[in-house]
Amino acid sequence: MDAIGRINFTLEEALAGVLADCPPKLAAALRYSVFPGGARLRPKLCLAVAWACGEDEPRVVDGAAAAIELLHCASLVHDDLPCFDNADERRGKPSVHKVYGEQLAVLSGDALIVLAFEALAKGAARAPHRLAALSTIVSRATGAAGGICAGQAWECEPEVDVSRYHRAKTGALFSAATMAGAAACSVTYEPWRALGELVGEAYQVADDIRDVVCNAESLGKPVGVDEALMRPSACRELGLQGAIDKLNNLVERAVDSIPQCPRVQELRGLVRQEALRFLPEELAQAAA
Amino acid sequence: MDAIGRINFTLEEALAGVLADCPPKLAAALRYSVFPGGARLRPKLCLAVAWACGEDEPRVVDGAAAAIELLHCASLVHDDLPCFDNADERRGKPSVHKVYGEQLAVLSGDALIVLAFEALAKGAARAPHRLAALSTIVSRATGAAGGICAGQAWECEPEVDVSRYHRAKTGALFSAATMAGAAACSVTYEPWRALGELVGEAYQVADDIRDVVCNAESLGKPVGVDEALMRPSACRELGLQGAIDKLNNLVERAVDSIPQCPRVQELRGLVRQEALRFLPEELAQAAA
Repeated sequence: MDAIGRINFTLEEALAGVLADCPPKLAAALRYSVFPGGARLRPKLCLAVAWACGEDEPRVVDGAAAAIELLHCASLVHDDLPCFDNADERRGKPSVHKVYGEQLAVLSGDALIVLAFEALAKGAARAPHRLAALSTIVSRATGAAGGICAGQAWECEPEVDVSRYHRAKTGALFSAATMAGAAACSVTYEPWRALGELVGEAYQVADDIRDVVCNAESLGKPVGVDEALMRPSACRELGLQGAIDKLNNLVERAVDSIPQCPRVQELRGLVRQEALRFLPEELAQAAA
Repeated sequence: MDAIGRINFTLEEALAGVLADCPPKLAAALRYSVFPGGARLRPKLCLAVAWACGEDEPRVVDGAAAAIELLHCASLVHDDLPCFDNADERRGKPSVHKVYGEQLAVLSGDALIVLAFEALAKGAARAPHRLAALSTIVSRATGAAGGICAGQAWECEPEVDVSRYHRAKTGALFSAATMAGAAACSVTYEPWRALGELVGEAYQVADDIRDVVCNAESLGKPVGVDEALMRPSACRELGLQGAIDKLNNLVERAVDSIPQCPRVQELRGLVRQEALRFLPEELAQAAA
């Protein structure tokens, strides 16, 4: 099974565990929030790091990867709510609150956060002493202290430090992905933070670029949102070419940051290859 | 330190751990969501069960009790949102979204859910093999499969089984409190479910009674809400006296359900005594 297949299988399993005793509309909204899904970048990164570290307990890794993707899905559902972005579309289809209403969108996000921690605990059954580190990594990445919630909450402040904002809103879950990949293999995880942070920052710059150069169809969500909402954006700061240069620089720094591990060379290649996919196709070809 | 003091101390500690790197408005909203707090019934129940089981690792118990209260606070903040109850008041003061706006209310609820799992992991540091059970108990109690999210989502369905609705919306977190109290002491936790379920059901009946007989000032939130929203209510089904009889019956069944443990007699007395406090003072005196 390829990485995406493995991730989707674990997500299906996690959802199946709750859908039996779940109110029908919430069940439908949960499934809609998680499938068919986007690029699954964060769990793929988690699996890649675990593979590079020589994973000995695949179920623990699966639980970590699923938890990270579930938290990502939760954040998208809540970000799209009328009180935030009020987005009509996500991943090329109507957003959750557009289809199921605001109540079920709030509840879906909440339930996905909870399900993430349940998946983590279930996955760690074969190596329970690894759970505390995983749970701490994942909660720090999503909570009020520099996690996704903090990132989103910076949008409510009159003054924002752009890099702090991106680090919390996007970088935190990417670094959780790399650290959890290591921690799931009982490898010291702190040295893996930089890889996630740099890949996350590269992804954010690529997202700013896509927001400027793509059309809504290829993006699967409305374009020009950053500009319209006056959000911090690499393109506004550096111009398009400046943003592309920054992206390439970040990817190289990410590759250089990879700690020693059994498959360090393979992981370096994988990171470079995957990072190219962040960009719209025509720009990726130019960059390759 | 009494139980409330111990609970508030642990909650302060959990919050202090995140507020340092948290956007100022979110930090304020989080503190406002958790303090001064209500009766702290659920964490008190958790501490009482752990005490009855002869707690050997108080920090693990503290983490569990804090997690349960944080999840309760999260559910109140989200329940009060405009898309649900649109409540102006909670615990005798303006609701979180009234003071901080809808965005920060959504984010506070999210961040409190995450913080609950972080507190659980932190508390379990001295007995990490107890974390998986605790994490599973707590996530099942709050998630889409029979947890708080399911309970709230039943309100979005055209047909509701009243007892299933209450079991999910209220009972689940009470039974998590008793089961987590046992699991935090490494005691087999499933036999403790009934106590929590029955206390939770008693509390729900008492809540229905208070919604009918209290004024808004003593309740700290608007009255008559169940009636206005056509929610299932024991008073509407059974009348006031019928509801009081049901409450007394539930408390006795709860007391009888307590499994063997080092302080079973003391816990029986405590459950009876605390249950009386569920009622408005004049009714409690009549029932005593």
